[in-house]
Amino acid sequence: MAKGTGASSGIAIARAFVLPTLEWDLTDKMVDVADLAIEFEKLYDGIRSSKVELLHIKQDISDLIGVEESNIFDAHLAILEDPIFMNEVQGIMQRQFKAAEVAVKETIDKFVGMFELLDDSYMKERSADIRDVGNRLLKHLLGDLEEPKPPSEIPYILVAKELSPSQLAHVDSQQILGIVTLQGGTTSHAAIMARALEIPFVLGMEGKLAKPILNGDLLIIDGEEGMVYVNPVQELVELYLQRKKDILAHREWLQALANVRPVTSDGQSIELKANISSLKELDLALKNGASGVGLFRTEFIYMDRTMLPTEEEQFDVYRKAAERLQDKSLIIRTFDIGGDKSVGYIQFPEEDNPSLGYRAIRISLAQTDMFKTQLKAILRASHYGSVRIMYPMISSLDEVRKANHVLEQAKKELRENNQPFQENIEVGIMIEVPAAVIIADQLAEEVQFFSIGTNDLIQYVLAVDRMNETIAHLYDPYHPAIIRLLKMTVDSAKRQGIQVSVCGELAGDVLAIPLWLDLGIEELSMSVQSLLPFKNRLLHTERAASQGIIEQALLCKTSLEIRNLLERSRIKH
Amino acid sequence: MAKGTGASSGIAIARAFVLPTLEWDLTDKMVDVADLAIEFEKLYDGIRSSKVELLHIKQDISDLIGVEESNIFDAHLAILEDPIFMNEVQGIMQRQFKAAEVAVKETIDKFVGMFELLDDSYMKERSADIRDVGNRLLKHLLGDLEEPKPPSEIPYILVAKELSPSQLAHVDSQQILGIVTLQGGTTSHAAIMARALEIPFVLGMEGKLAKPILNGDLLIIDGEEGMVYVNPVQELVELYLQRKKDILAHREWLQALANVRPVTSDGQSIELKANISSLKELDLALKNGASGVGLFRTEFIYMDRTMLPTEEEQFDVYRKAAERLQDKSLIIRTFDIGGDKSVGYIQFPEEDNPSLGYRAIRISLAQTDMFKTQLKAILRASHYGSVRIMYPMISSLDEVRKANHVLEQAKKELRENNQPFQENIEVGIMIEVPAAVIIADQLAEEVQFFSIGTNDLIQYVLAVDRMNETIAHLYDPYHPAIIRLLKMTVDSAKRQGIQVSVCGELAGDVLAIPLWLDLGIEELSMSVQSLLPFKNRLLHTERAASQGIIEQALLCKTSLEIRNLLERSRIKH
Repeated sequence: MAKGTGASSGIAIARAFVLPTLEWDLTDKMVDVADLAIEFEKLYDGIRSSKVELLHIKQDISDLIGVEESNIFDAHLAILEDPIFMNEVQGIMQRQFKAAEVAVKETIDKFVGMFELLDDSYMKERSADIRDVGNRLLKHLLGDLEEPKPPSEIPYILVAKELSPSQLAHVDSQQILGIVTLQGGTTSHAAIMARALEIPFVLGMEGKLAKPILNGDLLIIDGEEGMVYVNPVQELVELYLQRKKDILAHREWLQALANVRPVTSDGQSIELKANISSLKELDLALKNGASGVGLFRTEFIYMDRTMLPTEEEQFDVYRKAAERLQDKSLIIRTFDIGGDKSVGYIQFPEEDNPSLGYRAIRISLAQTDMFKTQLKAILRASHYGSVRIMYPMISSLDEVRKANHVLEQAKKELRENNQPFQENIEVGIMIEVPAAVIIADQLAEEVQFFSIGTNDLIQYVLAVDRMNETIAHLYDPYHPAIIRLLKMTVDSAKRQGIQVSVCGELAGDVLAIPLWLDLGIEELSMSVQSLLPFKNRLLHTERAASQGIIEQALLCKTSLEIRNLLERSRIKH
Repeated sequence: MAKGTGASSGIAIARAFVLPTLEWDLTDKMVDVADLAIEFEKLYDGIRSSKVELLHIKQDISDLIGVEESNIFDAHLAILEDPIFMNEVQGIMQRQFKAAEVAVKETIDKFVGMFELLDDSYMKERSADIRDVGNRLLKHLLGDLEEPKPPSEIPYILVAKELSPSQLAHVDSQQILGIVTLQGGTTSHAAIMARALEIPFVLGMEGKLAKPILNGDLLIIDGEEGMVYVNPVQELVELYLQRKKDILAHREWLQALANVRPVTSDGQSIELKANISSLKELDLALKNGASGVGLFRTEFIYMDRTMLPTEEEQFDVYRKAAERLQDKSLIIRTFDIGGDKSVGYIQFPEEDNPSLGYRAIRISLAQTDMFKTQLKAILRASHYGSVRIMYPMISSLDEVRKANHVLEQAKKELRENNQPFQENIEVGIMIEVPAAVIIADQLAEEVQFFSIGTNDLIQYVLAVDRMNETIAHLYDPYHPAIIRLLKMTVDSAKRQGIQVSVCGELAGDVLAIPLWLDLGIEELSMSVQSLLPFKNRLLHTERAASQGIIEQALLCKTSLEIRNLLERSRIKH
């Protein structure tokens, strides 16, 4: 038994197929000056066939998983066209008269080594892209090598040192029941793809295993807990088979609730919407009965890009989302980049405290061309469904007014081009900076809706970075100040008659149900995974039992008192 | 003309004396094995005489500037006793048979190089300590060298590549009118000492000067603006002589206000207290007419230490402060370490957002032995004056209760040892975390006073790191949310009948005077430099003109409206 990091949940029980690590053992082959032209021809042929192959894989992934996931391969295509990378390869060939494959190998090693030195998980993962595409190019330069193939027809658990999206695309994903890797991070492409494919995935096993996993070893993996069992005893296998059955049964039973109306036992309904980061997640959200999307995190769809997505590329995704939702509401949040989410196509200053820094609407208002491009894409998508716009990290009226000014420009340009859009599209803001709560009455006069982002709000109100393990115990959603701020926000919204919903993690916490009922929240937006368990609890909750709970919570002096209060209100029922 | 960084304000006009950079040009001298014992004797002699010299300098600085500033030299003494440093020196001698001075030189270079690689300004400045003490040791090993001496009797402006506190201690500080260095930071020891001695200081001139400053060049330096003029035209000299005179005249005129009661033109008085970081600053505060200390930042007095200060060492400083203040009130804030203030004697975790991290009361409550030691030192000092205790970064009632629990333990231990202290010492908290404002009514029931720390409060409420230049424009003390939170805090305090003061930078901003008057703030604590200019403005302010300004400010929608409102209230008068 060994514990790694769970990167995609679920249980898998099957035999291991160990993917060998690609190690190119190249001799330092030289070429005659006279043959250099032929060698260059070989290089260009290799690049061409690598590109054709990548485009095929991209199409396969697009069909199989989704268009955004297939964009991973754009980064690979870009490397094959990268002038710095290619200049290096050609330079080695020209100056040192080395064979194309030797020059490619040396260039890969150089760039990978450089990127891995950087103390930046994003750049580290880009080095994996370089190695991946470099290996593909080498394969084409050297001609097909004998690669071990998994046992055909029999499903297996894939074991690898590290898994590139190419490798995952090559193998028949229908046959992979689970994945175990020694390296890799939960934000790696392979992890993203595994989650999209719903394949259990445990990574980070390096140094955790007593001995290496061999082909044919029986494995149990638990992607939730990050556990891997190698050749377990029969009792354990049976236990996990039973657990897997239970989970499946519970999931099926929950799934049956997908089309049940979310309503308390005494008839109070709350709309349950989904937070999504991709079209793939949208499909899951609809499958799980979401009545709309309360938060589309647009920054995630193009995180892997090295260049800013064009208006057309964005429009394509937003329109698809709007169309799939039909008349269900879709709230698109403009880019929330910065903080802990860095992207390749924006230069960030070195920041001591990025969470208190240059991020979200602050970047949008500083780079209004980028912002306007996004707004135009959203506006154009509004022609195809029920689309609303939401600005993140608003802390003042000034910011709302400036953002709306750019929105008006975007509308004007679309009108001039006769491009259709929803003229009276609704605009709302995230309430996540403490200042926004304090001036919520004024903000309510300028926008059509609020969405309370509890994750950041709690972080700023308590001055606690929720990612910081040393002080994790201080990050407390049930701190008395949080309840009071929720109440202030809702009061301000209702007084002005605008809609208010909640979209942070707290929204999907079943313990908070009595709070939402007594606050009169009519709409919650939560992770796709929370939708059905939350609805299940809501169906068994009595609205009447929550009556007056806010009034009591406002008097509580500690979060423990508030938690007890909420627990009791449930038991009372 | 060239612009550097102002590290200590004031204007100086004088000729330059250029301190030559110590460059040891040592030949790689070897010693016979038989003579190694003699060589070691030489090393130990050098260490001994270096120590004696350092203790003398320490005493001089203590007499001249203050006991805390003299502690800088404890770090130097510690290096001479540092086992890692000395093992390295001895190892080079023993294994490579090199002379003591060569071994010392190589060890300095190695450690300085190591420290300078670190991306940490604190460690970088520690490397300056090593070079400084190393050079002292080398000087003793090589025997006295001919050092250029400044022109005796004639005051001059000291010019150096970098200035160590030793160098500053060596030269006759009465003769130095100003300092210019190529390198160094505003938090370097030399900068701290220059400010304490009130010597104008401009640093960071590297690459800014068209040609090097030579001995005897006429210089004008402006420590406020960071300007340096080399051999200026006569008109400029006269202009600056006049400016210097004006500043001095204004300062003298302000100084005459020191004993004037701080009161508005229509008779409303506000107590003006000082924020201090050292006993030296306390003397300045009293000279500038402070009616007490509203914030003693205890973390600064021992920032340079490599070890935790003992109870006795702390008691010594706190008692001296209490005695000098006589019956004037002294609020001692417990250590506010962490965030942007790191110290050598506490291990900090790597933090992505240190301002939202492990700091202040969070450290104190995690390391209660350290906390209790400090509380005992404060309690013992309370026997000698009017001392109060203040906890920083409070975000919940739980924290207040836990801190008070440690305080009770400290009292109990003192009682058991028959050590006298003020039994009913008052305890207060900083209001600087947004959550504290929101639950101020509950906190007011548990403590005897509030002090609003506007610097951090603004930072968290607006989610803006005030040190981050990219978003500096968003750090706005007059944001409507801030005014509302000030009002909430004051209301909660008054309803409970406890005292509330303000101690952030906003406290000393003259624009805010009408706010303080209308809020009914009776006590402000500000930087020593702000005391007299603030009082000057207060004397010319009419209480009546501020009437109702808060009510109007609460309706303002932008900080511009609030600033205009405050400006107008002044013009009205």
